[in-house]
This record gives sequence, C-alpha cells and structure tokens, in this order.
Amino acid sequence: MIKIAIIGFGTVGQGVAEVLIEKKEYLTKVVGDYKVVAVADSKGSITGDFDLNHALKVKRDKKRLPDGLTALEIVKNLDFDLLIETTTTNIEDGEPGLTHIKEALKRGKDVITSNKGPLVVSYKELMKISKKNNCNLLFEATVGGAMPVIKFVRRCLAGNKILSIKGILNGTCNYILSRMEKEKMPFKQILAEAQELKIAEADPSYDVDGIDAASKLVIVANALLGIDAKLKDVKITGIREITPEAFDVAMEKGYTIRLIAEAGNELKVSPRLIPLNHPLVLQGTLNALQIKTDLAGDVVVVGKGAGKRETASAIISDFIDLYANQTINFI
Amino acid sequence: MIKIAIIGFGTVGQGVAEVLIEKKEYLTKVVGDYKVVAVADSKGSITGDFDLNHALKVKRDKKRLPDGLTALEIVKNLDFDLLIETTTTNIEDGEPGLTHIKEALKRGKDVITSNKGPLVVSYKELMKISKKNNCNLLFEATVGGAMPVIKFVRRCLAGNKILSIKGILNGTCNYILSRMEKEKMPFKQILAEAQELKIAEADPSYDVDGIDAASKLVIVANALLGIDAKLKDVKITGIREITPEAFDVAMEKGYTIRLIAEAGNELKVSPRLIPLNHPLVLQGTLNALQIKTDLAGDVVVVGKGAGKRETASAIISDFIDLYANQTINFI
Repeated sequence: MIKIAIIGFGTVGQGVAEVLIEKKEYLTKVVGDYKVVAVADSKGSITGDFDLNHALKVKRDKKRLPDGLTALEIVKNLDFDLLIETTTTNIEDGEPGLTHIKEALKRGKDVITSNKGPLVVSYKELMKISKKNNCNLLFEATVGGAMPVIKFVRRCLAGNKILSIKGILNGTCNYILSRMEKEKMPFKQILAEAQELKIAEADPSYDVDGIDAASKLVIVANALLGIDAKLKDVKITGIREITPEAFDVAMEKGYTIRLIAEAGNELKVSPRLIPLNHPLVLQGTLNALQIKTDLAGDVVVVGKGAGKRETASAIISDFIDLYANQTINFI
Repeated sequence: MIKIAIIGFGTVGQGVAEVLIEKKEYLTKVVGDYKVVAVADSKGSITGDFDLNHALKVKRDKKRLPDGLTALEIVKNLDFDLLIETTTTNIEDGEPGLTHIKEALKRGKDVITSNKGPLVVSYKELMKISKKNNCNLLFEATVGGAMPVIKFVRRCLAGNKILSIKGILNGTCNYILSRMEKEKMPFKQILAEAQELKIAEADPSYDVDGIDAASKLVIVANALLGIDAKLKDVKITGIREITPEAFDVAMEKGYTIRLIAEAGNELKVSPRLIPLNHPLVLQGTLNALQIKTDLAGDVVVVGKGAGKRETASAIISDFIDLYANQTINFI
C-alpha cells in the first residue's frame, strides 16, 4: 500500500486527487494499492483514515481545509511513502515547498512536485539529499504542464547526448505574440484582453518579463544538461517592447517572433526571430521544446503548458514512473 | 553480461553496432556490461569471441559476412540474451524477421527490432509469445525512426487514456508534398528529383501509395490503442493524384495538404487538408505524431523519421529501457 500525502490543495492538488479517485482501478493495476493519508493547504489539513472525495468537497465548500496538523508537521512526522507537493511557486527562496520537500527526502520519502520554486533555488542540493536517502524526487509537472520534457529526454531519448535545448516555455507570452502576429495590435492591448480571459495575471510581469520561462529553463538545464544553474545565470529579456511593426518587418522576410528559452553555451530567454514554418512556431498558449541530440538529431515535443488536468497528468505519469511494476508490455 | 546477437547487418544493424562501440563506457554504466556475440546478414555471420570493429570492417570491405552459422541457426541455438533484429521489412509475410523474432521469444530471449514486417503481420501473436515466455519485445525503431512514439506514450503519457492518434509517418511523402506546397510543381517532377536525391526509392509505390505509413499506423494502433489491426484494416489513399492546383485552392483558405495517418474510430491513411499553422504541418522528411489523450489533451512529437544514427538511437533507447538499473535520478 502506497501512502500518499498531498501538500498544497489548490487547483493542482485537487486535480491530482480527482485523477487518483477517477483512475483508481487502472492505477491500482499498474502501481499496486494506494491511499491518500493526508491533504493539507496553508490553513489546515485532513489526515488519517478519510474519504478523499469528502476532502475535496470540504475544500470546495469552505475554500479551506479544517484545522489539523500543519503541512510541516505532516511532512516531518506522519507515516507516508510519497509526498505530492503542489504548493505555490516562490522563486525567491522556494518556500514553503523547499522545506516540505527537504524534510520528506531526509526521511527517505519519495517526492513528486509541480512546484518550480524549490528546484530553481536548490536543484543540486535536493538531488543530493534524495540520492543520499535512497529516494526519488520527480518533477515533470514543473516544466510545460502536460508537455513531457524530463521523462521525454531520460526515457525516450536515453542514450543520446543532449547538445542543446530551445523552446517555448511560457504559454501567456506565446498567446500574446501569436495574436500580435495575426492581428498586428499593440502589446498592451492584447495583454489587456489576455488578462480579461485569465490567460495573463493581473500582475503579468512574472510571465511577460520572461521570469517564468527562465525558471523552467533553469530546471530543464539542470536536469537534462547536468549543469548547476540558478536563475541569476539566465540572461532574460521579456516581450513588453515588441511592436506590431517588428512583426511586419519579420514576416516580410518569412519570420515571426517568439519568446525563446535556450540552454546551450549560455542560458537565455529572449524574443527571437524564427522562420514561419519552424516547428516551434505555434499558436495560442501551447508550449514546445526542441532538443538537439547527437544520435536522434533534433526532436520537438509540443503540448499544453498548463491546466488542472494537464498538470495532474504530469504528476500521475511520475507516479507511474516511480511505482509501476511493469509498463513495458501491453497486450 | 548481456550477450547480444545482431541479425541483419545492413545500414541499421551496422549503425547499432557503431553506437554500441562508441558509447560502450556510458552504456555499460547504465545497463551493465554487454558483448555482441553474433552478427549475421543474409549471406553469413560471425559468432563467438570476436571484435565488433573487425566485423564492421569485414562487412564494409567485402559487402557480406563470411560463411558461418545462418541467422536461423543463431536465433535457435546460440547462447545470447538479446536479439537485435534489423533485417529488411517484408509486409507480406513478415519473413525472415518474423521467424527470427518468434524463435528468440520462444527461447525466452528479449528482442528489439526495427523491422515493421513481423509486427504488421503478427503483432498480437508476438506479444502473446513474449508474455508467455516472460521476455520482452520492443520496437521503437519501427515507427518514426528517431521520433519517440511508443515509449513516449507508455512512459511520458502514462496514466492517460489514448483517444486517437494522427500523424505524418512517411518522410518521403512529406518531402514531396511540402515541396509541392512551396514550388507548385507537379507530383511527378518532384518525385523524380526526390529519387535523384535518394529520398524516394526507384520503385516509390511503397511510400507514395501510403503503404509504409499504413504499416506504421498498424503498429502504433496495436501498441497504443490496444486493438488487433492488420494492414487490410487500413483505408489507404496515396498522394499520386495531388495536383499543384489542389495546393492553390487549399492555401487560399489557409490550408495545406499532407498525407495523414489516423487511428481512432477507423484506421486511415489519406491526403488531408490541414490549417497552415497546425503543429503537424512540417517541411521536408520530418515525421510527426499528434496524440489525443483524456488528461494531457493533445500532445505532438516531431522528429527525423529515418537515418542510420536516428534508427540506432531508437534501438539504443529500447536497450536502455530494457536493462537500465536506474535511469530516474541524474545528479
């Protein structure tokens, strides 16, 4: 029986809980029996022998979980096997996720997270702790939502040397730029509409100034190129200064403009000209990554970068990766 | 020590041998020690304690391997753990690959193949034999060359229900159509040029009549949708009848034409209209697959569909998938 603690019970945590309920029969076949023994948000928790559907209902009705053990008490003291950490990203110091993950790993518990903060701040340290304590830290959901990146390289491109990585890691910027390309309207106007549609946040700087893409780039570069990068190592330029005229000039020559995150000789997030028929030229909020390898050449993966079910999908794929008895042969 | 027999020593078999030599140090770290104990082509073989570099040199110099055990004798009697089967595809009866694979599986040996024939003809039967004998049959290289498809779905999209699959599975057709799109020249003229460039075969029908794409579709559908399809179940239309005028009409409305292989309610290979900005609209010989899932939504993967190193990449990734002690944590 795999005992799971879900810390962070917002959109992502609830999405995971829903899939764990909905796909119980299938998942049990693949990984064996499991049970959620704790859910916690920043206000409270439910632990012990409870019905996960009931916990979801409580959270939805009351917007918070009842008083109980704190997240930290759960992580430090409760009996569980797997921590699913889905608290909100904080790229300044990684907290509270960083402490949750560290404490769990120190106890030898496996961790799956969707939280970029701890990995941006302390990737190498966390990997060392997990190795030392013979447990695993998986984080597919931190980059590109439902777009597989980490397992894509480790599993599907196993045996290849990764030469460089280049991609679209922020759906909000891609949405704004692909609309500017089509409609030739100013950045500010499209941003305002994106905010109305909830595609951009009220304070859009994390997205449009390139910080979100840079955070994901740090994680990808650390995980796939084996370097030890921090956010300060990324040269970042956002998309605020791009004008409709820039698109005119680009498109006359068969190019468009996208915010590209790159890791090769250097780490860089910046608006770049790309040929209109390049696989990284996508519309809307899609994410994409092009991986340059020694054997397979260039491989591109495209997917939805965010969303409740999409992020849950990435976490569930990590869950299966960790515990599946046998996924190779399907008959 | 993993003992490997390579049966089929043309471009693909030699490519695999080269990578097994070139990446010996890395691969040994990942899967443990290994040794090629047999290589065979249709004319001869080298078995026992030999230098793989020497075997490559013999094949290159003499165009054939020396007299020795036949491929079938090796598969039936030699002591090995893994058969890498890279003989030429025959979609009529799957031979000689089908017998090689069956005999190895019956002996409980793992098999990795790049040969579409046996899987198109007898997918279900081969999977049953492998299950019964507690061994594995992996075949990433049969579809899309370096473009990961099978592991992509099984590993990266684990936990998702696959609703449908749609893609570009023949690089020759995509090359011809993407040039027709740009240059508005007749099919026959572009085909002739593609033949000069060795992108199309002297007898192009296997490619341009859609049979190659349909063969790959059968494998993908069987492996990922869990059905039991044969080539006769695919409705096939090739690209011979497409005119430059058809591109004019399509492009006026923002569309282009590509040969699309689809598996959902039915299995179909046919030229289709696709919006110009769709992720499946690619130039040149690239392959691509769009996978529709219940959780992750639509995910697309793009890569090189053929090539010596590219196909070797797919085989090596299967090799690692089979034997890796631990690929999850990289530090």
